[in-house]
Amino acid sequence: MDTRTTHGPLSVPAGLAGVAVVDTEIGDVRGVEGFFHYRQYDATELARTRTIEDVWHLMVRGSLPEQSDSEKWREELAAAAEVSPALRRRLIDVMRDSGEADPLGVLRTALSAYGGLIDASPLWESDESEKQQIALRTAAIVPWLVTAAFSLGEGRQPLDPRPELGFVGSYLWMLTGEEPTAAQVAALSRYLCLTIDHGLNASTFTARVIASTGADLPACVVGAIGALSGPLHGGAPSRALAALDEIGTADRAADWARRRLESGGRVMGFGHAVYRGLDPRSELLKETAIELDTPLARLAVEVETEVVKVLDEAKPDRPLRANVEYYAGVVMAACGVPPAMFTATFATSRVIGWTAHILEQSRGRKIFRPGSRYIGPAARPGQSGDGCSPV
Amino acid sequence: MDTRTTHGPLSVPAGLAGVAVVDTEIGDVRGVEGFFHYRQYDATELARTRTIEDVWHLMVRGSLPEQSDSEKWREELAAAAEVSPALRRRLIDVMRDSGEADPLGVLRTALSAYGGLIDASPLWESDESEKQQIALRTAAIVPWLVTAAFSLGEGRQPLDPRPELGFVGSYLWMLTGEEPTAAQVAALSRYLCLTIDHGLNASTFTARVIASTGADLPACVVGAIGALSGPLHGGAPSRALAALDEIGTADRAADWARRRLESGGRVMGFGHAVYRGLDPRSELLKETAIELDTPLARLAVEVETEVVKVLDEAKPDRPLRANVEYYAGVVMAACGVPPAMFTATFATSRVIGWTAHILEQSRGRKIFRPGSRYIGPAARPGQSGDGCSPV
Repeated sequence: MDTRTTHGPLSVPAGLAGVAVVDTEIGDVRGVEGFFHYRQYDATELARTRTIEDVWHLMVRGSLPEQSDSEKWREELAAAAEVSPALRRRLIDVMRDSGEADPLGVLRTALSAYGGLIDASPLWESDESEKQQIALRTAAIVPWLVTAAFSLGEGRQPLDPRPELGFVGSYLWMLTGEEPTAAQVAALSRYLCLTIDHGLNASTFTARVIASTGADLPACVVGAIGALSGPLHGGAPSRALAALDEIGTADRAADWARRRLESGGRVMGFGHAVYRGLDPRSELLKETAIELDTPLARLAVEVETEVVKVLDEAKPDRPLRANVEYYAGVVMAACGVPPAMFTATFATSRVIGWTAHILEQSRGRKIFRPGSRYIGPAARPGQSGDGCSPV
Repeated sequence: MDTRTTHGPLSVPAGLAGVAVVDTEIGDVRGVEGFFHYRQYDATELARTRTIEDVWHLMVRGSLPEQSDSEKWREELAAAAEVSPALRRRLIDVMRDSGEADPLGVLRTALSAYGGLIDASPLWESDESEKQQIALRTAAIVPWLVTAAFSLGEGRQPLDPRPELGFVGSYLWMLTGEEPTAAQVAALSRYLCLTIDHGLNASTFTARVIASTGADLPACVVGAIGALSGPLHGGAPSRALAALDEIGTADRAADWARRRLESGGRVMGFGHAVYRGLDPRSELLKETAIELDTPLARLAVEVETEVVKVLDEAKPDRPLRANVEYYAGVVMAACGVPPAMFTATFATSRVIGWTAHILEQSRGRKIFRPGSRYIGPAARPGQSGDGCSPV
């Protein structure tokens, strides 16, 4: 009998590493060069010189806004974030009923409800203008949803956005109930701009796979949030910060790193799957942390120096450096973001990248349907395990 | 300057068609042979001779239950489906607040809330026995969730499961409020057994990508539900039935099919991406539909004959036959399942396959992180679009 499968003739690396699964105009990560870009622009340069609102326009509309359009675009974003009082009450009810789940879990549930409540049409049945509108509304509601979830968990009333403070200022206001300093806004703006997109990480890939079915846009984002909640994906900044807490002082860093290596554990905050040397995001965030000059930032810089020495000794062939998670936690903490909200804060910028990828994916019509390699016991037609309990 | 990317050296077919992205012991689809199997057993034979409870055991535990274990397994499934009165109230509140969304959208939201409320741990931090328990609870709650969502939408109180009726009988009871006939139970059992798994379709693949991040199991299923909601994936049975309604009588079928072909539309219910000839699922469902002998079933058989003639004339090189969606709608309608609940009913069986795949994926530790091919304007370090509005 012919037991060939129709799948599986093409063998690929585990996790599809290095396999180009889509063509994209959104950006690229050039790991060997330590460089990544959004469309044709250097992402770290954008983070230094642009607002997240400008970069948002670049991601979903394809170009940076002209100076004269910036104000109009901000108004469009503020409008997209608005919810009616009735919708607001429903979403708060859903969040309350979601119980004690972490903010990312509550975000997943509330955004799923939001998708139904705004009656998002399947991508397959929407024109470009409808898709753009739903993309804006879906991404624009996330800052309010995650800060509302956090506030409810703390027993406080959710605060409304304050568009006049800009994306970052409004976010920190809703999160903390205090107006942030200009330095905090500038620092968090860099972090958020740097994390809008980074190739086909698992959450972005999830969003594109779901989009390929023609599902509605919030359904794609809800799936991506699930992927982001995975400890191997979005959970590292708080663990890197927990490690800094555990280390406590720089003179204990080398011992700590050696113990981690000896017990076979990963050294959280160091190394990246794509970047072989410097992670350009961590470079800019380190600079930002140094500017913020908090005790934690000073500790982080000293600890990095000590840990890198140990890693270079242990793995001379593969230089491991601090990755984006390491200084991300330091910067977020200095901006008043509690560790429990690190991944949710990450979600407020990454959702912009997801929506750009979903829009792009939805312009094609090819569903993802890979094959697999069956490695279990041989199967043949007619075989049904007779002898066990029948119907 | 070197502008190579670290991604994209390996080119693969669009949508990863025919690319083996995982090794699996769960099953395989052998499209050329018109054959698919769950583990080592012929899936259509299992659907003929086994209960869905037995096949569920096969999928997640790896073997068919011994006759002596069947009763204990059913009790385990009934226990896994139980919710406390407090949890039940919360889930109903979430479903009410989800508004007028379709049952699949409400399922997505409610299951997301459920994952938080049962405090599902990340797969990465769970042992096999915890994972198995959450897998059972997540899949076992779906029949109640979708029927409760439907009942609430109809203004009726959700009904409780009746485990003594078995999976299928209890499902139809909760859905319709009436005890189904033995013929209805047997027919729907076949449909549900046939649709538990079918390779790495987009929803199953989504579940595995999310699982690869180490996220919690409900997060994976929530993402998969989003993919299943896509018109290109799970939405076809109701459209195939709508087409039968539109055709009305068999003598109009050939004209209808010709018009669809001429206008470039797909003929819903015919052809499958994997099966080149007969779809083994549609064969068994056709047999089942004929046994049920409803007016709709008789119409469907006659229409199929007429449509196949037209398709064979138009595409002699590629024989298109009725696919699983075509007779699925007929069988579900005969069992009292309303078209609005077709995809949600599909979800009650497919979730079993998803959980099997999630469990298998979680035993590996390789995150999905594919590459992409950048096709936009050239980017170079330092480029930030100067001249437009700066920060």
